[in-house]
Amino acid sequence: MKKLSRISPSKIVLLVIDGVGGLPNPETGKTELESAKKPNLNRIARDSLCGLIDLIAPGITPGSAPGHLAIFGYDPVKYNIGRGVVEALGIDWELKPDDIAARGNFCTINDQGIITDRRAGRISTDKNTELCRSLDNIAIDGAEIFVVPVKEHRFALILRGEGLSPELADSDPQQVGLAPKKIEALLPQAQRTAEIANEFVSQASSRLQDEPTANMVLMRGFSRRPDIPTIPELYKLKPAAIATYPMYRGLARLVGMQVLSGGESIIDQLNNLRRYYWDYDFFFIHFKSTDARGEDGNFQAKVQAIEELDNALPSLLSLDPEVLIITGDHSTPATLAMHSWHPVPFMLKSKWCRTDNVAEFSEQACLAGGMGRFPAVEIMPLAMANALKLDKFGA
Amino acid sequence: MKKLSRISPSKIVLLVIDGVGGLPNPETGKTELESAKKPNLNRIARDSLCGLIDLIAPGITPGSAPGHLAIFGYDPVKYNIGRGVVEALGIDWELKPDDIAARGNFCTINDQGIITDRRAGRISTDKNTELCRSLDNIAIDGAEIFVVPVKEHRFALILRGEGLSPELADSDPQQVGLAPKKIEALLPQAQRTAEIANEFVSQASSRLQDEPTANMVLMRGFSRRPDIPTIPELYKLKPAAIATYPMYRGLARLVGMQVLSGGESIIDQLNNLRRYYWDYDFFFIHFKSTDARGEDGNFQAKVQAIEELDNALPSLLSLDPEVLIITGDHSTPATLAMHSWHPVPFMLKSKWCRTDNVAEFSEQACLAGGMGRFPAVEIMPLAMANALKLDKFGA
Repeated sequence: MKKLSRISPSKIVLLVIDGVGGLPNPETGKTELESAKKPNLNRIARDSLCGLIDLIAPGITPGSAPGHLAIFGYDPVKYNIGRGVVEALGIDWELKPDDIAARGNFCTINDQGIITDRRAGRISTDKNTELCRSLDNIAIDGAEIFVVPVKEHRFALILRGEGLSPELADSDPQQVGLAPKKIEALLPQAQRTAEIANEFVSQASSRLQDEPTANMVLMRGFSRRPDIPTIPELYKLKPAAIATYPMYRGLARLVGMQVLSGGESIIDQLNNLRRYYWDYDFFFIHFKSTDARGEDGNFQAKVQAIEELDNALPSLLSLDPEVLIITGDHSTPATLAMHSWHPVPFMLKSKWCRTDNVAEFSEQACLAGGMGRFPAVEIMPLAMANALKLDKFGA
Repeated sequence: MKKLSRISPSKIVLLVIDGVGGLPNPETGKTELESAKKPNLNRIARDSLCGLIDLIAPGITPGSAPGHLAIFGYDPVKYNIGRGVVEALGIDWELKPDDIAARGNFCTINDQGIITDRRAGRISTDKNTELCRSLDNIAIDGAEIFVVPVKEHRFALILRGEGLSPELADSDPQQVGLAPKKIEALLPQAQRTAEIANEFVSQASSRLQDEPTANMVLMRGFSRRPDIPTIPELYKLKPAAIATYPMYRGLARLVGMQVLSGGESIIDQLNNLRRYYWDYDFFFIHFKSTDARGEDGNFQAKVQAIEELDNALPSLLSLDPEVLIITGDHSTPATLAMHSWHPVPFMLKSKWCRTDNVAEFSEQACLAGGMGRFPAVEIMPLAMANALKLDKFGA
């Protein structure tokens, strides 16, 4: 792609509707997309090349990070992002290339050191913030320590220093009734980092010993930012992200996007798209509430989220980008109330897209589209081609 | 898969209709599946996610072993199983990990040692058994020797001992008018095994010299059981196989399935499914006669075999497994009277499968299914996902 990509003034807008794919409501036989009034999405479908994407592989349910990486053109198995890094991205923490990040839980242990609650009774975020402040000034030779609150019982630990390694096992046994494990080095060169991490846990334990519930920490997902070629490097694009949730801003930053203000709603996001439209040539817009309502198991609310998005689209359409792509990072059927493995509707509208006969943006309709069912990593080359930003391969 | 798989009480039933795919009868324009009355298969199709599978790759005709391995989730090219091992599996011989197996033919040579009949006039199986008994007590330093009759002129040779290697060329030149070849070591470490194998051939030749037709042996396909991760290891399943033919039982055993009694017919097989239903969470049921009738070139008999199977299905359906998959290991069009490369109808029924518009279990109808045309190795992840036995990938 690096060799074939070229700079041109054309614009690519990628709208990711988080968790948009669904399953039929048992009462009506219609999915969330099929149930929603969505004249704009349907009109776009009629002018688009449609299909259904597999983010990772058939049957595999994507987490949000690998789902987005696949859409951005990265092999999500090769560039698997650790739990700790995802946590740090989610709090807008700017990870340096060598930082080691881990996900932490405040938890409860009894007198024998056995875990009785892995979430310390889901302490409040305020309490969490107070506890993190007390742990943040733990000092250990060989690493700077950052302890940053996330939400309720969750925090992120960042270790910064020379020669650290992320090859560490978890201390979190992932079940109650056991003691936290010692953090083991998975490779010899991680030995010193393991010592630092265990020293952190030991000091944290001392400082927390008088807490009624949050009297211990559990660590997991030690990881480092993957060494990932950026979108500007790969595609000669100048990309920007407009997302309301920190985790998606963090992912966008990781692949070299400029992160613009997301505001509070899709209206704000599209206003910002208009405002910065001439400063970039690739925009990633992330719409969250479809996934959130799906995870809640609230079918009707997910339908309404789709309708809310559809209502906002004319503002985007009036910009008439050379390439508009609308898809999702995974399915979140309200009937399952979680991410799922089902493939996700996709459409790409451009002057050159060769449309198909699809007249509706839905799971069933998109299956008959010109792309059929295909891997999400193929989206970026398609976007580039339809924006006339790719040279021919070979003579 | 190992990392994502989890144990749950849900049941997966995989019914393989051997050679089920076909080609149109020139008189009617309908395939075997399209010609059969099969109300149960069609009803299942309406509630299923359908598609067409390629077992190995488009254009490649699968043998029975690689066809099944692909359905079981193994890359059939990586885990290619040697001819000798297939022969040993086919006689229910329990191969130890280091056993070397080869396929043998009794053949006829003339006074000059030139092969005049590669099958020794297709001697009877009784004669074969008698000859094998006389060869079975050949003793050679460094290996135990087992000579086991198969059928007509075919037998299996098993060498058991320390430090043996399967890297041996065939002695069978695969045509008449030539002499049997000396068995060559393909790697230096196979030198001693080559000597043992040649010594076996030499002693066999002496013992057979007065036989009117079966006066020599031809050896090919020296091979060892592949080192293959089992289904319990990969998927944390407790799998069982219900098959009437030894070769399929052998394959099932190879991938870690418990082999249950197959009985004589699909009725017996489904009775056994019912009997053992609560003892396992994965069942492989193998239906053979569609392939046998296809190989016979008997279109009408293959149609009847499909109807026989369809008639038996209500007993299976009444168990209502969480995931039911029905497909085949290759096509065997009666018009070709052999295995073929054509993709094979597939359907998966589950509460969470996201159905498509397919209303018939046939080659044409399944092409428009939600899976489209896809590689068979993707079946197992799909089965696991639909049984809610897979965790999400990545955070």
